Amino acid sequence: MDGKHKNGEKKIVLAYSGGLDTSVILVWLLEKGYEVIAYIADVGQTDDLAAAERKAFAAGASKVYVEDLKEELVTDFVFPMISANAIYEGRYLQGTAVARPLIAKRQIEIAHLEGAAWVSHGATGKGNDQVRFELAYYALDPEIQVFAPWKDPEFLADFRGRTDMINYAESKGIEITSTKAKPFSEDENLLHISHEAGILEDPNQAAPAEVYSRTVAPELAPDESVSLRIAFKDGVPIEVSNLTDGTRVSGPLPLFTYLNEVGSAHAVGRIDMVENRFVGVKSRGVYETPGGTILMAALRDLEGVAMDREVMRLRNMLADKIAQLIYNGFWFSPEMDFLMSAVNKSQELIDGHVDVKLYKGGVYPLARFSPSSLYDQELSSMDVEGGFDQTDAQGFIRIHAIRLKAHHAICKKQEEAQQKKQEQAQAVPV
Amino acid sequence: MDGKHKNGEKKIVLAYSGGLDTSVILVWLLEKGYEVIAYIADVGQTDDLAAAERKAFAAGASKVYVEDLKEELVTDFVFPMISANAIYEGRYLQGTAVARPLIAKRQIEIAHLEGAAWVSHGATGKGNDQVRFELAYYALDPEIQVFAPWKDPEFLADFRGRTDMINYAESKGIEITSTKAKPFSEDENLLHISHEAGILEDPNQAAPAEVYSRTVAPELAPDESVSLRIAFKDGVPIEVSNLTDGTRVSGPLPLFTYLNEVGSAHAVGRIDMVENRFVGVKSRGVYETPGGTILMAALRDLEGVAMDREVMRLRNMLADKIAQLIYNGFWFSPEMDFLMSAVNKSQELIDGHVDVKLYKGGVYPLARFSPSSLYDQELSSMDVEGGFDQTDAQGFIRIHAIRLKAHHAICKKQEEAQQKKQEQAQAVPV
Amino acid sequence: MDGKHKNGEKKIVLAYSGGLDTSVILVWLLEKGYEVIAYIADVGQTDDLAAAERKAFAAGASKVYVEDLKEELVTDFVFPMISANAIYEGRYLQGTAVARPLIAKRQIEIAHLEGAAWVSHGATGKGNDQVRFELAYYALDPEIQVFAPWKDPEFLADFRGRTDMINYAESKGIEITSTKAKPFSEDENLLHISHEAGILEDPNQAAPAEVYSRTVAPELAPDESVSLRIAFKDGVPIEVSNLTDGTRVSGPLPLFTYLNEVGSAHAVGRIDMVENRFVGVKSRGVYETPGGTILMAALRDLEGVAMDREVMRLRNMLADKIAQLIYNGFWFSPEMDFLMSAVNKSQELIDGHVDVKLYKGGVYPLARFSPSSLYDQELSSMDVEGGFDQTDAQGFIRIHAIRLKAHHAICKKQEEAQQKKQEQAQAVPV
Amino acid sequence: MDGKHKNGEKKIVLAYSGGLDTSVILVWLLEKGYEVIAYIADVGQTDDLAAAERKAFAAGASKVYVEDLKEELVTDFVFPMISANAIYEGRYLQGTAVARPLIAKRQIEIAHLEGAAWVSHGATGKGNDQVRFELAYYALDPEIQVFAPWKDPEFLADFRGRTDMINYAESKGIEITSTKAKPFSEDENLLHISHEAGILEDPNQAAPAEVYSRTVAPELAPDESVSLRIAFKDGVPIEVSNLTDGTRVSGPLPLFTYLNEVGSAHAVGRIDMVENRFVGVKSRGVYETPGGTILMAALRDLEGVAMDREVMRLRNMLADKIAQLIYNGFWFSPEMDFLMSAVNKSQELIDGHVDVKLYKGGVYPLARFSPSSLYDQELSSMDVEGGFDQTDAQGFIRIHAIRLKAHHAICKKQEEAQQKKQEQAQAVPV
Repeated sequence: MDGKHKNGEKKIVLAYSGGLDTSVILVWLLEKGYEVIAYIADVGQTDDLAAAERKAFAAGASKVYVEDLKEELVTDFVFPMISANAIYEGRYLQGTAVARPLIAKRQIEIAHLEGAAWVSHGATGKGNDQVRFELAYYALDPEIQVFAPWKDPEFLADFRGRTDMINYAESKGIEITSTKAKPFSEDENLLHISHEAGILEDPNQAAPAEVYSRTVAPELAPDESVSLRIAFKDGVPIEVSNLTDGTRVSGPLPLFTYLNEVGSAHAVGRIDMVENRFVGVKSRGVYETPGGTILMAALRDLEGVAMDREVMRLRNMLADKIAQLIYNGFWFSPEMDFLMSAVNKSQELIDGHVDVKLYKGGVYPLARFSPSSLYDQELSSMDVEGGFDQTDAQGFIRIHAIRLKAHHAICKKQEEAQQKKQEQAQAVPV
Repeated sequence: MDGKHKNGEKKIVLAYSGGLDTSVILVWLLEKGYEVIAYIADVGQTDDLAAAERKAFAAGASKVYVEDLKEELVTDFVFPMISANAIYEGRYLQGTAVARPLIAKRQIEIAHLEGAAWVSHGATGKGNDQVRFELAYYALDPEIQVFAPWKDPEFLADFRGRTDMINYAESKGIEITSTKAKPFSEDENLLHISHEAGILEDPNQAAPAEVYSRTVAPELAPDESVSLRIAFKDGVPIEVSNLTDGTRVSGPLPLFTYLNEVGSAHAVGRIDMVENRFVGVKSRGVYETPGGTILMAALRDLEGVAMDREVMRLRNMLADKIAQLIYNGFWFSPEMDFLMSAVNKSQELIDGHVDVKLYKGGVYPLARFSPSSLYDQELSSMDVEGGFDQTDAQGFIRIHAIRLKAHHAICKKQEEAQQKKQEQAQAVPV
Repeated sequence: MDGKHKNGEKKIVLAYSGGLDTSVILVWLLEKGYEVIAYIADVGQTDDLAAAERKAFAAGASKVYVEDLKEELVTDFVFPMISANAIYEGRYLQGTAVARPLIAKRQIEIAHLEGAAWVSHGATGKGNDQVRFELAYYALDPEIQVFAPWKDPEFLADFRGRTDMINYAESKGIEITSTKAKPFSEDENLLHISHEAGILEDPNQAAPAEVYSRTVAPELAPDESVSLRIAFKDGVPIEVSNLTDGTRVSGPLPLFTYLNEVGSAHAVGRIDMVENRFVGVKSRGVYETPGGTILMAALRDLEGVAMDREVMRLRNMLADKIAQLIYNGFWFSPEMDFLMSAVNKSQELIDGHVDVKLYKGGVYPLARFSPSSLYDQELSSMDVEGGFDQTDAQGFIRIHAIRLKAHHAICKKQEEAQQKKQEQAQAVPV
Repeated sequence: MDGKHKNGEKKIVLAYSGGLDTSVILVWLLEKGYEVIAYIADVGQTDDLAAAERKAFAAGASKVYVEDLKEELVTDFVFPMISANAIYEGRYLQGTAVARPLIAKRQIEIAHLEGAAWVSHGATGKGNDQVRFELAYYALDPEIQVFAPWKDPEFLADFRGRTDMINYAESKGIEITSTKAKPFSEDENLLHISHEAGILEDPNQAAPAEVYSRTVAPELAPDESVSLRIAFKDGVPIEVSNLTDGTRVSGPLPLFTYLNEVGSAHAVGRIDMVENRFVGVKSRGVYETPGGTILMAALRDLEGVAMDREVMRLRNMLADKIAQLIYNGFWFSPEMDFLMSAVNKSQELIDGHVDVKLYKGGVYPLARFSPSSLYDQELSSMDVEGGFDQTDAQGFIRIHAIRLKAHHAICKKQEEAQQKKQEQAQAVPV
C-alpha cells in the first residue's frame, strides 16, 4: 500500500524466545535466504533475556529487539480483561491469551519500522497461540506475510520430532541451554505461568507437585494469613496496602508485581482444568495466576456494592463472550471494541477498596467500602423501615404472579381436558 | 375452583418454625378468628422439630404437620440447580432460594388436603423469601389466599419492633426459647446456613469469627488434606469415595450429607458478599455451603472433559438466567421449565468421576475420568500428530481473519480521509 | 435536598392532554387543595393545543406550559431507538414507549422550575404508561412525589367508570369536546398512533377499517410506487431524496415528517398484534408507524453492508434487551446507558444510503451504497478468485468438524453399549 | 459399520443436479478412476429429474438415486426452523441452509448402503453450502472421505472458468441443456428460490425484475386480497383454510405447497439483502420464500397470545443463535440438540389459528384464536377491573424504582463533588 514492504520481501521479524524451537527456526529461515530480525518480548518471564539476545546474534540475526512490554501488559491488557470479568470457561484467567495480542502488536510495529514483509512465530499448529498471533497480525496489517513453520510442509518434513531439532541444532552449532528439558511445556509472563502437554496430557493423572513453579503449595504456605486492602478507581486498581505489615504499593506495575509476590507466597491461583481450544480439541492446562486471582476476587467483591444489579447482569452476559474473544485471539476486532465500550461504561464509579485475606490458597474478601456504594444499610435492614414501604412488596409480588397464574390456568385446563378424554376412552361400552 | 376452599375460608396453613416470629403470628391469627394449621418443613435444619411441634400445639394450632422434605430437597432442587450451574451473581449457591419453592409446594398440598383457603409465612416485607414463597403459592394455586403478616398494615401496627413481639409473646404465654438471640438472622437447611442482617449489615465490617457455625475456620481445619472421588451419572452425583480413608457413600441424601460433613470439617464453602435482592436493594450475606461447593466444583470439572464446548457456552449463558429465576422465586414458572429442558439435555452423558482435594477451605480438582470423555489425548497432544492435520489450521485462521482485514481496511481509509482533511484545513493559504 | 420543594408541598405539575380524564383530574386536584400547573407536551399529536391550553386555564390551572418536544423526540429518542434496532417483541416500534420518558423529563424540569413537590399523570393502573412515567420521574428526581389518580383509592372510589367522569365534568362545567368518543383509546405522536382497548380487546376480531387514521389502507394506496433514497451518517438519517419526484429533505424533524407523510400515503407501518405488558398481562395493540418503519428497514439494510458480522450479532442480542427496557420504562437507567455505549460504538461508520421502494404497505430496500462498506465484490464473487484462497476453506471446515466428530464418536459408543446390553438381556437362557 | 468402506475406497456418491458443474465433476471423477453413484435429491426444485437421471447414466454413473425428500424437508427441517423463529440476520428465511443437512443426511445413508468411502458435492469454495454439506457429512460419519472439487488443486487447475467447463463438456459429449444460462446463480427447493452472484453482485444495483421467478411482482399481484386461516397444534401448522374461496388443505406437504401457491400469486416473500457468510465475506442474496413467510408471520402472531412472555424472550434470545447454527451448517450438532430441546418445550400448547390477509406482497395477521390463550380480556381491559387490583401497580413501580433512585443519588453526589472541585480550582486567590 505505502510501499513499506518494497525492500522487505525477504526480511522477517521472528518472535524469538531463546529456546530450542525458535533458535532452530531462526537458523532454518536464514538458510532459506531470509534476513531474520529477532524480537524478544519482555512480558515478565524469568528467562535471561540478555543471554537470549546474545544467542540470537550468535545464530545470525541481523538485528535483535528486546522490548519491555511489562507495564503495557498490565495497564492495557490485564486490567481491562479483569474489569470485563473475562474468565474463560469459568476458571482460566487467560494469562497466555491476554499477552499474545500485545506481543503481536509490537512485532508488527517492528516489521513496519524495519520494512519487513514477513513475521514469524514458533507456536504449534494445534494450539491456540498460533491463532492469537496470526489473527492479531492480520488485524493490524492485512498485507503482512506470515510464516508459521509448524504449519509449513517443508519445515514439517525437516522436523518430525524433538530429536530432529536437537540434531539440527547440534549440526548448526546452536547452543542447547536446557540441561534437562521439563517433561511438559510452559508459557510464562507477569500474569501467570502455564503448564501443559507432555506428562500432563492425561487428565486423570494428578499433576505432580514439581509442576508448579510460581506459587508455593497450599500445604507449604505460611500458617499466618495476610490481609491486603486493594483500592480501585473506575475499576482499575490504584493501591495495595498490606494490612498485616503496613506495606503500601501503587502504580500499575509495582502494584501488580507485589500482588504476585504475596499471592505466590500464600499459594494463591492454582488451577488444573480441561478446557476447550479454539481449534476444536479439548486440552488440559495447569495454571498459576497469583496476582490476577486476587485482583479478580477483589474487583468482583467491590462491584457487589458499587455496580447496579442490571448493569452487572448485562456485563456478566458479555463477560463470557469477551473471554471467548480473548481466548480465541480476537483482541483486536470490532466486536471487542463494541463490547469494551459497554464494559468501560460499567466500570465508571467502581471506586473504593476491598480487604481480602490470603490463607493457604484461599482469597477471602472480608470487607469492602465504596464512596459510590449503592448499598443502603437502612433500606436493606430488616429492622429499620428506612424508606422501604413493605406494603409495596405486596403489589410487586402480585403483579409478578399474574403471568404464573395464567400459565397455571392453561396447564390445568389442558390436564383436565386430557383426563376427560382418557375417561371417555375408558368408558367405551362393551 | 372445585369448591376445595368452601369450608376453609378461615382455615390457614402457616409455615411454622417454632421461633418467636411464627409463634406470635400463630397466636395473632387465632385471635383474628382463623383456624391455624402449623406446618413445619424439615429441610435439614438443626432445630428441635419435636419441640417445635409441641410448641405449635401449645400455642393453639389445630393440627401440626412435620414434613420430611430432605431427600426431595436434594434430588429435585439441589441437584438440578447444580446441574444448571445456577450460581447467583457468581458466588451465592442459593441455599435459601432453592428450598423455598419446595417448602411452598408442600404447604399448598397441605392446604388442599385440609381444604384451607389461606396460607401464611413469616418472611419480612423487604427480603427475597416473601417473593419466593408467594410466587410459588400463586404458581401452584392461583386462587390461594396469602396472608403475609409483615406486609399487613394491621399486623405491622401491632408489632413495630422486636420488643412488641416479646411483650406480646409474654402476655400470651408463648415460650421464648432463645435465651440469647443471635445479633443477626439465619436460615438453615441441608444445603447451607446463611447469616445476614443485624451486626452484619455494615459491609465494611468483617464478619466476626463466631458468625460461622456450620464450617470450621480455614485456620482451624486439619493440617492433612482429604481427597474425595465423586462419581456422576448424567450430571447427577451417585457415589462419593473418600480416597484417604476408604469410606464409600451412595444414595442422594447420604452422599450429600457426607459431603457436608467432610466439607465442614475442611472449612469449605464460606462466602461473604454483597448481593442484589429482587426487591431492588443490595444486601450483605454470609453463607456456609460445604457440600454444595464441593459438588459444584466437581461437576464443573467433569463437564470440562465430557461436555461439548458449544453446549457448555450456551448452558453457561442460560445458567445466569436460571440462577436469577431461582433467586427471584420463579422455580415454578414456564420459563424455568423451558430452560431446564435444555439443561437436562446438556447433562446427558456427563458421566464419570472427579478426584478433588479439600484443604483448609480450598477445593482442588486433581484428576477426572469420563467414559464419555470428548478429550482426545492424541488429538490434543503437541507431540503426536494424532489425526490433526496442522496445515488445516492455516485455512482456519486465514478465513477467520477475513473480517478483521476488511474492518482494518475501512478504519484505515477513514483515518486517511480525516488526516487529509486536517492537512487541507491547515494548508489554507494566508 | 436543595430545598426545592420547600414551598411546593401542595403544588403539582399535571401532564395534561385536554381530554376528559386529565380535565377531571385537574379539577379534582384543585378540590383537594393543590395548586395545579398544567403541562401540555407537544410530541406531534394532532390535537388543538391552543384549545387545550385555554381549557386548562378555564379549569383552574395556575399556569399552563405548552412545550414543543418534537425535535428532541426525533433526535434524542426515536433515532437512538432505531439505531439500537429496539423493536419490541419483533414488531412493535414503540411509538408510545419512546415518548414517555421525554414527556416525564420535561415535567420534572418544570416541577423544579416551579418548586413543585408533586407530579401527576392520567395513565391507568393496568397499563405500561404509568410505569414509564413514574420510573422516569423517580429516576430523574428520587424525592419527587407522584400522584397517580388511577391507583389512588379515594379517586377510584369517586370514579368507578366513564359515566362518573362525565357526570363530574358536567357538574363542574368542564367542557366535553369529544362529541362522539371513539370506542377504543389512542395515543399519538410523531412516531405513531396506537389504538387499543374497547372494541379492540377481542384479539380474534379483526380491527375495523375505521380504526386506522394515520395511514391509508394498502388497498387505497397509490398504484404507483415511490422510491426514496435515505442517507445516513453514523447510523443517523441525514437526508431523504424522493427518487420519483426529486424532493430532497434534510434536518431531523423535516426529514422524519416527510417520511411520515410519504409512508402514510403508501400505507406503510400498520401492525396488529398481541403483546406482553410489563405488568404481566397480554394486550392487543393496533399501531401505525409509517416513518419509523421506513427508517428501520433502511438502516437495517445499510447495516448489512457496513456493519461487521460479529458486531451485528452482539448488537442484535442487546437489541431485544434494549427494546424491553424502553417498553418497560427504563429509558433513564444505568443499564440503558451501559447498552447504548455499545450501540453507539456499533453505529460508527454506518454511513451511506439505501434506496427503498414503497408500494401498498410494503417497504422494499432495492439498493444500498456505503463508503465504509465491508462488502467486497471480488472477495464475495463466485467467479473471481479475488484474494480468497478456496483451499483455505478446507482447513476451516475440517477444524470446525473436529468437535462434531468427537460428539458422534461418543454417541455411537453409547448406542453400541446400550444395544449390547439389550442383546444380553434378551439372550437370557431359558 | 466399521469396515464398511473396505471395498468402497474408490466408490463415491456425488450429489448431482444435472447441471453443467456436477456433470463435469461426474465425468472428471470417472477419469480419476472412481466409481460414481449419482444422487439426485428431490427437495421440490422444478428441474426435470427424470432427464437428470438419464443424463447421469449417460455420463457414466454406475447407479443413480433419485430421492424424494420433500415431505421430510417440510416436517423435519422447515417446521422446526420456523418454530424456532430462526431467521438469519433478521430477514433470511434460510431456504437453502435448511435443506442442505437433509440432502447430506440421505447422501451419507446412500454411501453406507453402497459401501462407498467417498462423498462429493459441487458447491464452491467461497460459499456457505460447502460448509453445510461437509459439516453434516462429518457429523454423521466422522470417517467419511469428502471430495470437494472446488477446493481441490488438481480440479481447480483443470477448470479456471466457465469456458474450461464448457470445453470439457463438449469434448466429453456432456449435453449442455442451458440454452441460455442465467447471468446469476440459483438454488431452489420447496421453501424458496435464491438468486445471487453474477449481475447481482453489486449491492447498489437494484435486482432486475426478471430475476424473480417464483413470485409475481407486488405490482402484478391481484387487486383483491385473500384471507387464510392457518391452524397450529404445538406450533406445527395442521390446516390452512382459504377464507375467501373456502379451500381447506391439511397434511404437511399439501398444506405447505398450498401456502407457496397462494403466497406466490400474492407476491409474498421477496427479500433483497446483504448478508454475512460463515466464511467471513459479505454477500448479496435475493430470495423468494412465499409459504415460509406466511407461516412465520402466522406462528409469531399466535405466539403473541399463547406463549408466556418470559418464555418468548428466552426463545427469541436462542432464535438468533439457532439461525446462525442453521446458516453455518451445524444442524447436526450437540448445541442444536441442546437448543431445540428448549424450543420444543416452548411450542407445547401453541395451539389455535391465525387469520392472515395477503395483499400485494404484504402478510397481515388480522385475528387470532387460541384455546390455550394466555390473553385474558378482562384482566387486560382498561374498563373492567377484572381481577387486577390497580393499587398493586403502585408497589410494583415503587419497588422497581428503588435501584434507579440509588443510582441517581450516586450520580448526583459525584456531580456535586466534581462541581465543588471546579469551584475550588477557580477560587484560587490572586
